Amino acid sequence: MDSRGHSNGGELEAKQMDIRRLSSSRSNTQCIHKVGVPPKQNFFKEFKTRLKETFFADDPLRTFKDQSKSRKLVLGIQAIFPIFEWGRNYNLTKFRGDIVAGLTIASLCIPQDIGYAKLANLTPQYGLYSSFVPPLVYALMGSSRDIAIGPVAVVSLLLGTLLQKEIDYHTHPEEYLRLAFTATFFAGITQATLGILRLGFLIDFLSHAAIVGFMGGAAITIALQQLKGFLGIQKFTKKTDIISVMRSVFEAAHHGWNWQTIVIGVSFLSFLLFAKYIGKKNKNLFWVPAIAPLISVILSTFFVYITHADQKGVAIVKHIEKGINPLSVKQIYFTGDNLLKGFRTGTVAGMIALTEAIAIGRTFPTMKDYQLDGNKEMVALGTMNVIGSMTSCYVATGSFSRSAVNYMSGCQTAVSNIVMSCVVFLTLEFMTPLFKYTPNAILAVIIISAVINLIDIQAAILLWKIDKFDFVACLGAFFGVIFASVEIGLLIAVSISFAKILLQVTRPRVSVLGKIPRTTVYRNTQQYPEATRVSGILIVRVDSAIYFSNSNYIRERILRCLADEEEQTKKAYSPKTQFLIVEMSPVTDIDTSGIHALEELYKNLRKRDIQLVLANPGPVVIDKLHASDVANLIGEDHIFLTVAEAVSSCSPKLVEEA
Amino acid sequence: MDSRGHSNGGELEAKQMDIRRLSSSRSNTQCIHKVGVPPKQNFFKEFKTRLKETFFADDPLRTFKDQSKSRKLVLGIQAIFPIFEWGRNYNLTKFRGDIVAGLTIASLCIPQDIGYAKLANLTPQYGLYSSFVPPLVYALMGSSRDIAIGPVAVVSLLLGTLLQKEIDYHTHPEEYLRLAFTATFFAGITQATLGILRLGFLIDFLSHAAIVGFMGGAAITIALQQLKGFLGIQKFTKKTDIISVMRSVFEAAHHGWNWQTIVIGVSFLSFLLFAKYIGKKNKNLFWVPAIAPLISVILSTFFVYITHADQKGVAIVKHIEKGINPLSVKQIYFTGDNLLKGFRTGTVAGMIALTEAIAIGRTFPTMKDYQLDGNKEMVALGTMNVIGSMTSCYVATGSFSRSAVNYMSGCQTAVSNIVMSCVVFLTLEFMTPLFKYTPNAILAVIIISAVINLIDIQAAILLWKIDKFDFVACLGAFFGVIFASVEIGLLIAVSISFAKILLQVTRPRVSVLGKIPRTTVYRNTQQYPEATRVSGILIVRVDSAIYFSNSNYIRERILRCLADEEEQTKKAYSPKTQFLIVEMSPVTDIDTSGIHALEELYKNLRKRDIQLVLANPGPVVIDKLHASDVANLIGEDHIFLTVAEAVSSCSPKLVEEA
Repeated sequence: MDSRGHSNGGELEAKQMDIRRLSSSRSNTQCIHKVGVPPKQNFFKEFKTRLKETFFADDPLRTFKDQSKSRKLVLGIQAIFPIFEWGRNYNLTKFRGDIVAGLTIASLCIPQDIGYAKLANLTPQYGLYSSFVPPLVYALMGSSRDIAIGPVAVVSLLLGTLLQKEIDYHTHPEEYLRLAFTATFFAGITQATLGILRLGFLIDFLSHAAIVGFMGGAAITIALQQLKGFLGIQKFTKKTDIISVMRSVFEAAHHGWNWQTIVIGVSFLSFLLFAKYIGKKNKNLFWVPAIAPLISVILSTFFVYITHADQKGVAIVKHIEKGINPLSVKQIYFTGDNLLKGFRTGTVAGMIALTEAIAIGRTFPTMKDYQLDGNKEMVALGTMNVIGSMTSCYVATGSFSRSAVNYMSGCQTAVSNIVMSCVVFLTLEFMTPLFKYTPNAILAVIIISAVINLIDIQAAILLWKIDKFDFVACLGAFFGVIFASVEIGLLIAVSISFAKILLQVTRPRVSVLGKIPRTTVYRNTQQYPEATRVSGILIVRVDSAIYFSNSNYIRERILRCLADEEEQTKKAYSPKTQFLIVEMSPVTDIDTSGIHALEELYKNLRKRDIQLVLANPGPVVIDKLHASDVANLIGEDHIFLTVAEAVSSCSPKLVEEA
Repeated sequence: MDSRGHSNGGELEAKQMDIRRLSSSRSNTQCIHKVGVPPKQNFFKEFKTRLKETFFADDPLRTFKDQSKSRKLVLGIQAIFPIFEWGRNYNLTKFRGDIVAGLTIASLCIPQDIGYAKLANLTPQYGLYSSFVPPLVYALMGSSRDIAIGPVAVVSLLLGTLLQKEIDYHTHPEEYLRLAFTATFFAGITQATLGILRLGFLIDFLSHAAIVGFMGGAAITIALQQLKGFLGIQKFTKKTDIISVMRSVFEAAHHGWNWQTIVIGVSFLSFLLFAKYIGKKNKNLFWVPAIAPLISVILSTFFVYITHADQKGVAIVKHIEKGINPLSVKQIYFTGDNLLKGFRTGTVAGMIALTEAIAIGRTFPTMKDYQLDGNKEMVALGTMNVIGSMTSCYVATGSFSRSAVNYMSGCQTAVSNIVMSCVVFLTLEFMTPLFKYTPNAILAVIIISAVINLIDIQAAILLWKIDKFDFVACLGAFFGVIFASVEIGLLIAVSISFAKILLQVTRPRVSVLGKIPRTTVYRNTQQYPEATRVSGILIVRVDSAIYFSNSNYIRERILRCLADEEEQTKKAYSPKTQFLIVEMSPVTDIDTSGIHALEELYKNLRKRDIQLVLANPGPVVIDKLHASDVANLIGEDHIFLTVAEAVSSCSPKLVEEA
């Protein structure tokens, strides 16, 4: 209904159209520099530009331009399989770096994999499977040189919690496993689709602050879950919130804790933390914390084997299936109710897995100075998980901790992932029986020492210092994960992030400007207290695009600035405000609601005998001002290039009238 | 995980803190004007200001400041019941205006009410009830002088569709009625709550464009529904989409159309449209279209009565319950499943009803130059509907068409609503039997001629001209309503509006600036083709706050500008770019992700031997740059007040190095 009030404007417009043309062609003596009107763009051209900027901001086809057809084919294959690009320059020196790095991350990943599989409520071999096939696929299709592919703690926990809500893994292990493959399949599809549709930027909506809080909360939740293995508790809650877990722990205190397990746990945790400390102190000894987990596994397994501690209540791994990944295509649910469940779980797990991989993709290339195409990476990760889901793997992604070790061990290319994959292959084929006597406590300890890194207190402090709102988002995600569940934490984090965007769009700043002495520069009087107001003229700056969501607020806010100003002038017996200059530099866009707000502001001011003056409207704004004929309503001679010119044009008129 | 890469920054910061203090205190010879750092604000003070700006932007307690206690009490009562404020200055002249306006809108509303009740699948008297109690309540609590309260077409249709989906009115009329009261109750609660919590700005998220489309679609849907009465069809679909309705109409073509009804319909529709035309041609004859509906009712009723047309298949009203509103408190569902249904329906209907009232509240006060407090209005409208729901009324709101008539008839205050209410009271008490022979066709005709006004083609054309995206939102809402349903249309409209906001936030413009000849002004080179680039220096402006949702895009976009520039300089053998000036005027805020993006940009540029220079960061930005120590990283002497100063400072250095 709002529209009726404005349709008159439309009629008016048609009449004034001719006048406008006249007025804009006549030479303007007052205005020294005219506000530029950009050349009228074709609608489809404009639309195309906009579309390109949204989805192809990185101009991925840049290299294809002006190339022959056969060259384009080669470039296309190289774009999908970067290994054909960097493979041609591969040499022995690089291989030496890769083999050391590959062996190091393999020693780190094998014990982690076994533990992480438990977080996802799967038997240990699935963790190892997921470190065999996905790294190979990634090596073919990915372009990051430093990423280490495999299962990670947070995704394993998330997948475990989400799947457990659908199917109980105790009573229906078969269906649970099938659902896990289904979820992995759809996680891959989600990732690849985001990449292909060039929607990678959606990942950005999970803000840094939210991720810090979420990861910290997930780390604590994961560590708490390890208390089961660490304390040797038999009956343990399936919930992940801190209250349920602590209750579970204390209820088991009287009879459920196993002191032998605790002794093993405490001693090896001390060992791992000490190794970590050494690695931190001396960057050259980075390999100490990297191989410490494997050493712990070997030592503790040997210890349990010779002392027969397993007969005294120390829980052990018992059995890991021998042999490489069996096919699992037929186990994926492609129909029925479970399809939907798997899809839902997979989408969430896939998105979270992406955030971790993308963070890695942003950190390491900067250090080595190469560029990554986020959308292409997503396609690689997605394909990897789709193939993984068909070969008994669950969701794999880039692990931040292992990638850091990979980087520090001197990896050169994705070949380090292939090396790691080969080691995992050998382990699966020949060494699984050796893990029989590995105590569960050692896996718990390895996970605890791994996830501690995810708690980033420094980052949280920085958030508090820089942006309080970000800090609140971080805390919300953190406590949401700890006290409710992983999904709730995620939901809180996303909601707060969105609320922040909406708040920005709904309540932009409107500031009063003053002249900085001895310049022609006009700046915010709050930031520059020395800036002086020009009497009789109020200058305000609108700090946002004017859209339907804020147009009314901006109009009212400007009028409130005026009311404040008039109150002050009344007290000081200064001359009445006669001009209101709106500095439009930050107004990058305006929509129909914004145009109406401006029109209403103009009418409102005219009733009070105040002239509205615009300074420096941008290309889009000036175009729309003309299209809607508001430029004509305000008057072409009241639109200036700069505030200084507007003031110098208004001031003489002021004297006349005063 | 993203965070790890940055925590080093945190450590660094602590060390450099002292250096920063030193560097900012030393006098800077190069920079003529220092960038102002606003005084450090207390966190809670900042938080309070932010909160106030979000929820109390209009400073509603302004008048209460510095007043005595008793005066505050009087002001408080006047704030809740504005009638005590304007009532004291009420006089006979005003009353004369109000009585004429009140009688005019009463003559318009009585036939409309009967028709609109049918849209909501209710018997006619409920329409009249809703024009009796709510206007009285509004007159006490509302502050608009021009609004005409009562049932409106779109809300009636919406309520009817939504309720019908829950309970069928044919088979369960009793429950349907009770649910209607429940929905009305919650519509009122929603409206009042939005007002009390000062969340009125949420209404702004329904953009003007979306409303134009939605209203147009609703008008066509309502008009199509009237074909039942207009053609005298007995069996008619319950769906509202155009396909179902047209099928229903054509299926009835052979035997279901009643020619006597059509004759009545066509002749009176011509009469009403002619009256409308007269009113449009000559603004002084506005009362012609206003009383035409009542005349049509009287004439057609008389005609049917004397010709016994009702026995020839012309459907008539038959019966309207006599007497004023019975109480309906006990009929509202306060428990059980229906509570939830009523709540859901009521919330949507309440919001849509608000948009119509708020649009009126924005249009008329501008003409008469008085201010309305949107949040207070919402409380008034909400209370009115809550009381209405207890006195057998369904959702009432301000009707745009009747408000326009009210305004043109010379209404002065809300007393015109009281007059209208009295006339409706008299009608209910004494005149309902007179409507017995009123043909349904005449009600259909009145509704058609009323809703035609809602189709605002002029506004749609303006949307196309000003903002293509708005036009798409408008079309989406329009076709959604016509081809699917009222709710789908609403959903489409809201989704498109949100998508637009998100797009703006995710993909802000980054433009390259050049110097306008013979000035020190730097502007967008696309808008001002005459602006010249400074060789060796690239100047870009970021046109948005830098947030997590766009920080990566902005960083990459700036680097792309640089790549383009370097390609050009290579072709032209110009000197290599050595400085990148980022004009930060439009950057009103920056969050932690933004700070990181800036940090990464700096590091990336340093690798290429390019110095990052910032121009005119705003108060919030400079504060956060200092808090995060990025100001120090970039160097205090690389942050300038204006682009001109930055250029004049960089240029001499350029010569040295070149």
